[in-house]
Amino acid sequence: MTAPHPRLSINQATIKHTTAAQAIEVTRAAGIGAIGLWREQVQEAGLDETAKMLADSGLRYSTHCRGGWFTAEEGPGRVAALDDNRRAIDETAVLAAAGAEGSRPVLVLVVGGLPEGSRDLLGARERVRDAVGQLAPYAAERGVTLALEPLHPMYASDRSVLSTLDQALDIAADFAPETVGVTIDTFHLWWDPDVIEGIERAGAEGRIATYQVCDWKTPLEADNLLSRHYPGDGMIDFADMTRAVEATGYDGDIEVELLNQAIWDTEPAEAVRRTIAGFDVAVAPYLRA
Amino acid sequence: MTAPHPRLSINQATIKHTTAAQAIEVTRAAGIGAIGLWREQVQEAGLDETAKMLADSGLRYSTHCRGGWFTAEEGPGRVAALDDNRRAIDETAVLAAAGAEGSRPVLVLVVGGLPEGSRDLLGARERVRDAVGQLAPYAAERGVTLALEPLHPMYASDRSVLSTLDQALDIAADFAPETVGVTIDTFHLWWDPDVIEGIERAGAEGRIATYQVCDWKTPLEADNLLSRHYPGDGMIDFADMTRAVEATGYDGDIEVELLNQAIWDTEPAEAVRRTIAGFDVAVAPYLRA
Repeated sequence: MTAPHPRLSINQATIKHTTAAQAIEVTRAAGIGAIGLWREQVQEAGLDETAKMLADSGLRYSTHCRGGWFTAEEGPGRVAALDDNRRAIDETAVLAAAGAEGSRPVLVLVVGGLPEGSRDLLGARERVRDAVGQLAPYAAERGVTLALEPLHPMYASDRSVLSTLDQALDIAADFAPETVGVTIDTFHLWWDPDVIEGIERAGAEGRIATYQVCDWKTPLEADNLLSRHYPGDGMIDFADMTRAVEATGYDGDIEVELLNQAIWDTEPAEAVRRTIAGFDVAVAPYLRA
Repeated sequence: MTAPHPRLSINQATIKHTTAAQAIEVTRAAGIGAIGLWREQVQEAGLDETAKMLADSGLRYSTHCRGGWFTAEEGPGRVAALDDNRRAIDETAVLAAAGAEGSRPVLVLVVGGLPEGSRDLLGARERVRDAVGQLAPYAAERGVTLALEPLHPMYASDRSVLSTLDQALDIAADFAPETVGVTIDTFHLWWDPDVIEGIERAGAEGRIATYQVCDWKTPLEADNLLSRHYPGDGMIDFADMTRAVEATGYDGDIEVELLNQAIWDTEPAEAVRRTIAGFDVAVAPYLRA
């Protein structure tokens, strides 16, 4: 078995049924250099305790997952969502500071879909812009980058009214690049005829906060949220997108985030092993180092 | 019960479990003015017999469904696919000539996904361009319009490597507008931040061959192909897209094509009745007449 690629990071969603302690341990034990954790597990373990475990592990922190879900109209729900995002920003700052050198204070944002009963897609998109405007100063003060993630258009009504890189970049454009960037995830963007131009634009504007690799395979699972596969197991050719990201100068960690019941049913150490192998075959050949 | 809108057309997929004779009869009996049939049922009934039934019914023929599926690489499969598309062009010409005044000789094209085992999305898209180039002279001679249909990006690997209106228009641009146009279907395009500009472009270039309305609702069905809903039953706001199509001067029939098991399990006459009602509420208010 080869050593893991030095830029590979495990996103905890890939090994969902782990505590923060277990996720950190299985990642470290596999010789991987970086990890991104999910808020639920961090909160269960406690933020300070997680920061301590992370520091002890020697792992870099690649992203914090996740904020967003702020397309609700004015009212208590919206206020609560923005408050929760401020807590997520705080968590991101603490964990990135606890991680090894090269950690990135990046909070991934899945912005949310249409509010219940609404058909106002443009209004929801405007409320995303408004929410980012409200959160950006708070993030900037704490040195955190908000990473807007365009999701596949099949999630446009229920998870993300942002579907393309250009939409995310158009919102980010109002803010400093170190405060608002984008998440580039192959699963969500591979179909887009403009994806390479979008990556080039994101690079030129200094907005690539994180790069995530994940494969697409049809038929999709009955629950389409769980249709994400190990790199190399599906239909995505990672060459062009990965080379385009590399060409921008992005040199951060590259996360593998797999929501998939069969993978969740696998022993975490085995899922990590398969992630290492898939990354080596399907992604690593297109990286500088 | 109100009379059906004069521009409403029933696509046979909405009443899938009908013969051509039954589909024509249930549509005519409901007072609807136009129909689009599927090739399987036309071939079962026989082309000449279907043309005769159509002429007797007084219905307009709005589209023929469907051709395409020509992303295969060079070889017998590709030759067979192109031959089959020539037959579909012949059928389209015969049926549109048999339909009442206002019939449109439009063959809808679902181009196909990635060939088995392939990850070459750009290559598949180029083979679409090549196939259209091979078929266009044949269609032009018979006065048939090939209507490239961009499908929702969730079908990019298995049904259509064309996902956006701009992609379809970029291919169509090499040909005369009366020979190669586009199918605009709300279900496939509603999420696209550029959809209104795409419709305006399609109109300016004279490429709108047909407009189809169909609603989107999440959660999607386990088989995402069958997630299409009566207009008004889902999350699409039909106002902006319909107004944009109208503003181009498009004055043809507007089809409702619903692939949905629950609708297929409904009596065809009842499915047609519900289609009329949904169209009246969700689409008709944005039409000139």
